[in-house]
Amino acid sequence: MCDTCGCHLHEHHHHNTKVVEVNQSLLAANVRQARSNRQHIEKMGAVAINLISSPGSGKTTLLERTIEALVDTVRIGVIEGDIETERDAERIRAKGVPAVQLTTGGACHLDASLVHGGLHVLEHFAKGTGYDLIFIENVGNLVCPATFDLGEHSRVVLLSVPEGSDKPAKYPATFKGADLVLLTKVDLLPYFDFSMDEVRKEAGLLKPDLELVALSATSGEGFDSWLAFLNKQLNR
Amino acid sequence: MCDTCGCHLHEHHHHNTKVVEVNQSLLAANVRQARSNRQHIEKMGAVAINLISSPGSGKTTLLERTIEALVDTVRIGVIEGDIETERDAERIRAKGVPAVQLTTGGACHLDASLVHGGLHVLEHFAKGTGYDLIFIENVGNLVCPATFDLGEHSRVVLLSVPEGSDKPAKYPATFKGADLVLLTKVDLLPYFDFSMDEVRKEAGLLKPDLELVALSATSGEGFDSWLAFLNKQLNR
Repeated sequence: MCDTCGCHLHEHHHHNTKVVEVNQSLLAANVRQARSNRQHIEKMGAVAINLISSPGSGKTTLLERTIEALVDTVRIGVIEGDIETERDAERIRAKGVPAVQLTTGGACHLDASLVHGGLHVLEHFAKGTGYDLIFIENVGNLVCPATFDLGEHSRVVLLSVPEGSDKPAKYPATFKGADLVLLTKVDLLPYFDFSMDEVRKEAGLLKPDLELVALSATSGEGFDSWLAFLNKQLNR
Repeated sequence: MCDTCGCHLHEHHHHNTKVVEVNQSLLAANVRQARSNRQHIEKMGAVAINLISSPGSGKTTLLERTIEALVDTVRIGVIEGDIETERDAERIRAKGVPAVQLTTGGACHLDASLVHGGLHVLEHFAKGTGYDLIFIENVGNLVCPATFDLGEHSRVVLLSVPEGSDKPAKYPATFKGADLVLLTKVDLLPYFDFSMDEVRKEAGLLKPDLELVALSATSGEGFDSWLAFLNKQLNR
């Protein structure tokens, strides 16, 4: 293990025992805080979903469409992670749902401690009505967020068609840690050399029972399957 | 500063002095190794370019097209960074150019020490003929690679149209550190809500003289400007 990112370091890296020790203690602290977050969320009567992807894979757009579909029946709250800007939280609030923006100021992932603060702010926003479903949108990064449990109940990884179908093999830890993979922007399949078979095969090698849903926020394709997944989480 | 990633940590992060000290010493070691790499590359008679972007923005495709254009007149070598797989180096070798694959085994960025090893392997591949131009393709990550000087002479950041025009504002350190920004996949502009004006404006706020080139590997648009940039680097 390396740094706060928790990356498994290659042998070529110059690292000393001190770094390894410090980082193990940081990761252990994150695991403890994540466990506490999960209890916190359950006491709120909610389930939480951690959304992980590259920048621009469509996490915020997915949330906008999901809120439109569920806002009348499910009490949703959103924690947004970004290095800078309040933009994503503003997009979510425009849909009538409470959203907390966590800006990391440079850090490449959310951690359980930041999310803990976010949960308290979200509770404040709820004004007593509470939440059923809390989405945590991680910093756009297909590597570092994979190592940090935030206290979520399930983890959803998005892979958009323009990124290419070789990504599960190249970012194995992230896909292996997913409970669901959403293949987004599938309306663009005609314009890209993207192989669904390659994704299915390589994701299957990493985690045989990994569920994949092909999705388009433009055409609406796959949204029934995505909402069914969410419904299963709500009734767990 | 945080970890090996060097991210500027938000105040909410639980970090102790020990972490900060360790990471400062790691980053200082990287700066020294990068300086040594730069001298090494100059002794080889070459210039080096560090390519940074999100996963799937088109770094390897850019290299394939660039090699096709220059292979007869410029001696090119490539160092490929990935967490796993030898695929990108294989794609480059298929174009008749020496390529070293560095797999980080989990780490989210290349560092100067890894690249130093790569330079030695690249020299071995050259069999005495040498290089004019060395491309270093970083791990697909728009955050962490920004903090690590690899010993390059210039840094090129790719942003693809499907990722969205809000990315400079959201990932300021990466764009601020760029010598050139390549806006890739611009043939897809008709299918996306992507604003060139937004990118120009926000990139300009970060770095007033930042050069932007709109590029399409499909249509060939912008390649003359990109090759002119490379030519300027070769004659520096």
